Amino acid sequence: MELTSPLDALRSRFVQGDVLALSRLISWVENHRGGYEALLDSLFERTGNALRVGITGPPGAGKSTLVNHLAGAFRKRGQTVGILACDPSSPFSGGALLGDRVRMSAVSDDPGVFIRSLASRDALGGLSSTTNEVALLCEAYGFDVILLETVGVGQAEVDVMHSADTVVVTLVPQSGDVVQAMKAGLMEIADVFCLNKSDQPGADLLEHSLRQLLSLSMRDWTPPIVSTVAVQGKGVGALRAAVLDHEAFLGVAGQAQRQQQRLTSMLKENAEARWRRAAWNAEGQALLTRLARDVAQKKRAPFEAVGCLVEALG
Amino acid sequence: MELTSPLDALRSRFVQGDVLALSRLISWVENHRGGYEALLDSLFERTGNALRVGITGPPGAGKSTLVNHLAGAFRKRGQTVGILACDPSSPFSGGALLGDRVRMSAVSDDPGVFIRSLASRDALGGLSSTTNEVALLCEAYGFDVILLETVGVGQAEVDVMHSADTVVVTLVPQSGDVVQAMKAGLMEIADVFCLNKSDQPGADLLEHSLRQLLSLSMRDWTPPIVSTVAVQGKGVGALRAAVLDHEAFLGVAGQAQRQQQRLTSMLKENAEARWRRAAWNAEGQALLTRLARDVAQKKRAPFEAVGCLVEALG
Repeated sequence: MELTSPLDALRSRFVQGDVLALSRLISWVENHRGGYEALLDSLFERTGNALRVGITGPPGAGKSTLVNHLAGAFRKRGQTVGILACDPSSPFSGGALLGDRVRMSAVSDDPGVFIRSLASRDALGGLSSTTNEVALLCEAYGFDVILLETVGVGQAEVDVMHSADTVVVTLVPQSGDVVQAMKAGLMEIADVFCLNKSDQPGADLLEHSLRQLLSLSMRDWTPPIVSTVAVQGKGVGALRAAVLDHEAFLGVAGQAQRQQQRLTSMLKENAEARWRRAAWNAEGQALLTRLARDVAQKKRAPFEAVGCLVEALG
Repeated sequence: MELTSPLDALRSRFVQGDVLALSRLISWVENHRGGYEALLDSLFERTGNALRVGITGPPGAGKSTLVNHLAGAFRKRGQTVGILACDPSSPFSGGALLGDRVRMSAVSDDPGVFIRSLASRDALGGLSSTTNEVALLCEAYGFDVILLETVGVGQAEVDVMHSADTVVVTLVPQSGDVVQAMKAGLMEIADVFCLNKSDQPGADLLEHSLRQLLSLSMRDWTPPIVSTVAVQGKGVGALRAAVLDHEAFLGVAGQAQRQQQRLTSMLKENAEARWRRAAWNAEGQALLTRLARDVAQKKRAPFEAVGCLVEALG
């Protein structure tokens, strides 16, 4: 497939380090506009050199502030940082609200930091596959570090963390936080725990509960627990160090394994998306509507109708 | 497709109103055990007579307590109630924690109330399609009212609400709650707003912000705002009345339209799930792994590999 001309022009500017071109290409990929697949293929050679760090946790855990300061900690060592904040967005408005971008003002004047909110658009593939595609674009652009932020409630949001090499789960001293995190499946994906707002009452208890839970873990890597007060920037250096420790633990083989898992998901999800696009063309949609009407009128049972659909769609 | 013998026995007991059989059939459907499709088809004739009410909102909004008391309000009028609480569950443990069931103790001794936590199991289809299937089973069992509870963060959880005729969005006086709800897409799906913990500071401000937002709405139905203090049972009667008002507004035509939308989603998702099962058999998985390895080694670009996959899977 050949690249279309405006896309070609953006790609040339992107390769020269034009941040506006990066921003526009992210929209292009996010919206799955024509040629985005060929674009990602053509840039794929440049990927694979960034450190990918995921930050997740319950709403109100101070993730955005933490990401902000963590970016600063990497910047101090001269590394460039791309921040991708994935909000569960409205199915109607189709766009993320500006909240995260506004709160990021501390690093937003630094040209070595790039910040982007991603909206989840269900029709075009999951939040996690789109995020992974955008992260590949950011890798190709040349960021040293990519920070992926999602709210840690909901399967789609938690799945985003599979795009990271190291996952930081952020909790705050507040009754039920550990239970909520367990429910959301955050305990199993955590490589590092961050106890934020650790100056608030209940911090010791939270740390104690976490340590007890972790003592039951059978994993080779025991996630360290780092206490922070993100609004004051306290403990952020230690958090960065814990992330680097985990990267060192993974090593080349471990990172290659995580990358292989990511690529497997990416191929699988995109193959499924192509099938869906082919299946639900005008003809497929019309058949679907007709069958649903039959079922609603009890002329047909639901899975009998599913059988008809599958047969017709091949 | 013929029903297998143990399933047949459970079905007979289910039809006679045996609640243990209901419970076991829910597990059967939830786990997509063999014959569940034929089971649902054979019971489909009995469905369509229940009022389906969804209750969602941010974590900590008191949804479980509210569901508990709302169930009580319906019981007072002699109606039977099935409660389905959908937790985002761990992808590893594969099960919901007991929290919700424990907190429901007030109604759990009443034989006219049935309570069940559903786990989201990604491999077997989304949370919303499984919930809809279990809700159909509950309708066939004969409940007058089905209450569906999910946490209102995350697309998958919000999608569950599409299985309801009336959606109650629960908010509490707490800074940022409305913004979080907007981000999660809750504003657009709300048919009724419940301001819970309305005795706490900030309740007036929350109600004011909500009214302002609602004044911008272009919908035919303006969601009423009901103030409650769920732990004391205050305002729960008014909440039930608001739900019934919305049902009356929908009328027969509106309810039929929502049912038709539900059935369309159900057919579509199940057709896709069947395709996935066929595609990712041992052979398909092996090809996927081989291609992902090629991509990881940069022998092939990712979407080139997707093309190979789609061609091979037909």
